[in-house]
Amino acid sequence: MKLTTLPNGTPDGRLHIVSRDHRRCQPARSVTTLQAALEDWDALEPLLSAEYEAVNAGAGEPFDPAGTLAPLPRAWQWLDGSAFKSHGRLMQKVFKLPPVDTGGRPLMYQGVSDRFYGPADDIRLPSEEDGIDFEGEFGIITDAVPMGASAADARTHIKLLVQINDWSLRKVAPIEMKTGFGWIQAKPASSMAPVAVTPDELGRYWRDARADLTLDVHWNGDRFGAANGYAMGVGFDELVAHAAYSRDLVAGTVVGSGTVSNENFREVGSSCIAERRGIETIDLGEPKTGFMRFGDRVRMESRHPDGTPLFGAIDQKVVRA
Amino acid sequence: MKLTTLPNGTPDGRLHIVSRDHRRCQPARSVTTLQAALEDWDALEPLLSAEYEAVNAGAGEPFDPAGTLAPLPRAWQWLDGSAFKSHGRLMQKVFKLPPVDTGGRPLMYQGVSDRFYGPADDIRLPSEEDGIDFEGEFGIITDAVPMGASAADARTHIKLLVQINDWSLRKVAPIEMKTGFGWIQAKPASSMAPVAVTPDELGRYWRDARADLTLDVHWNGDRFGAANGYAMGVGFDELVAHAAYSRDLVAGTVVGSGTVSNENFREVGSSCIAERRGIETIDLGEPKTGFMRFGDRVRMESRHPDGTPLFGAIDQKVVRA
Repeated sequence: MKLTTLPNGTPDGRLHIVSRDHRRCQPARSVTTLQAALEDWDALEPLLSAEYEAVNAGAGEPFDPAGTLAPLPRAWQWLDGSAFKSHGRLMQKVFKLPPVDTGGRPLMYQGVSDRFYGPADDIRLPSEEDGIDFEGEFGIITDAVPMGASAADARTHIKLLVQINDWSLRKVAPIEMKTGFGWIQAKPASSMAPVAVTPDELGRYWRDARADLTLDVHWNGDRFGAANGYAMGVGFDELVAHAAYSRDLVAGTVVGSGTVSNENFREVGSSCIAERRGIETIDLGEPKTGFMRFGDRVRMESRHPDGTPLFGAIDQKVVRA
Repeated sequence: MKLTTLPNGTPDGRLHIVSRDHRRCQPARSVTTLQAALEDWDALEPLLSAEYEAVNAGAGEPFDPAGTLAPLPRAWQWLDGSAFKSHGRLMQKVFKLPPVDTGGRPLMYQGVSDRFYGPADDIRLPSEEDGIDFEGEFGIITDAVPMGASAADARTHIKLLVQINDWSLRKVAPIEMKTGFGWIQAKPASSMAPVAVTPDELGRYWRDARADLTLDVHWNGDRFGAANGYAMGVGFDELVAHAAYSRDLVAGTVVGSGTVSNENFREVGSSCIAERRGIETIDLGEPKTGFMRFGDRVRMESRHPDGTPLFGAIDQKVVRA
């Protein structure tokens, strides 16, 4: 099943069902918002699935992915992991950081969740001097997860997959990291691709609670990266269980993978500028690639290996706030 | 003006107006939830003020502070500062941490906001081994704050003051701090005292965007601390401006002071167990006070210096999840 949210003048927008080929969509009949759907998912999912089959059979109107909001335009909770070890190891090497003993815990921060930018929204940021960077990620959305859920329990609560751009200000990030308190200024609101999909849409490419998909990233029209999402050191199930250790997770909790990164980053490229700069620092002694400038665009899309669209594309521009 | 939220079977509850003496309350007529009030504060504040005068004149029903939800039972954003320098310096000394260069930025983390416990709710936590601790704090709630707001601008967006218990798991916290990503497991949902008040209710005790009030903390009936809220190194205005650097703050953003702490902590006591343990470590070579056990209670209340109630009391018990 594929879901999107179209603007209707309210903060949560209007939930729509999208056809598998992204050509058609129609308003969901069973429920009006994705948040409401997630709060009663088990009851609503069969009804929405039936609506999905109708859209696949030709019901609805033409779908314009660039005209959507984020599928979940605001969430009660956004928790972003950093699950790709090749990214972590590279950053550690570049910044000569000591190894961090997390006691086996995955890395995760709590981010601003009251707004997820839509896929074509301009991104307003205060200064080019802050080191504006994108981070291409996969993410999942849960229904309600009780405190103490195991990874196996957690997996049953993963209802949707999304594709995310986690905007980052790289000059601010290390200052905030040193405090141990995590990021506030360095992590502005994130963006979502237009369509959220149920895991079954990935077929065998949803495995071990990971998205075995390539994330194509283009910066100002140039290919920047095409890393695969399967290389997570822990799956989304373990990320969800980690988050639920001492809190109930509210329905509509969004959990991110962290920037998609592969061991062979020299071949496949990267999903954020910081990683490319890290590679340059190791290979050339210093970073050669600058961060984003106002007016720059980034495009991110991940399709099913058979070519079928899944999330649609994030394609957006950074502008001065 | 004083506002509370009573349970009505919905997550946001029903906004009520509370009399100055906390003896009476009645449902707000102009708006049904505090979140909705904050989204249209400038238009609604005069109407709510008129209702407040009616309750002060005798309208409404008897008010039971122990039967409320948090005034804002869930928020789109919860950002907690750590603004009391005596607390930070003590912790640094105890844990032999190097001084942190924050580039002049205040300390702040983003916490779980989809639930604030009511003042008498039991607090479910997974294990006594995690070092269960309370943190008595003051907090503020804003209406919408545009990105880039100055501290002076930010001050005009501080609409309400609240009293908060920021639950903390002390054995987990340093592990998560070392990652630089901030806290997930170490910071479960927080609690709020029953009543939110407009700054004018503090009279001259709201100054420099700080609450010049004593926060009385009792643990299992024994006085634990009575520190004053004025000693913040930065005011709430600066905390709000810090948060708004690279994001618009959604109406209903809650910003905390961090655990209330004074230089003369040996006389006035502390607002969290970690601080008392820190003092013991310095004075006696090791901490003598244990953390909370299941069944323990903590009570926190801050009144106007003339004895008038302000926020009402948090009085709650920790229980095994």
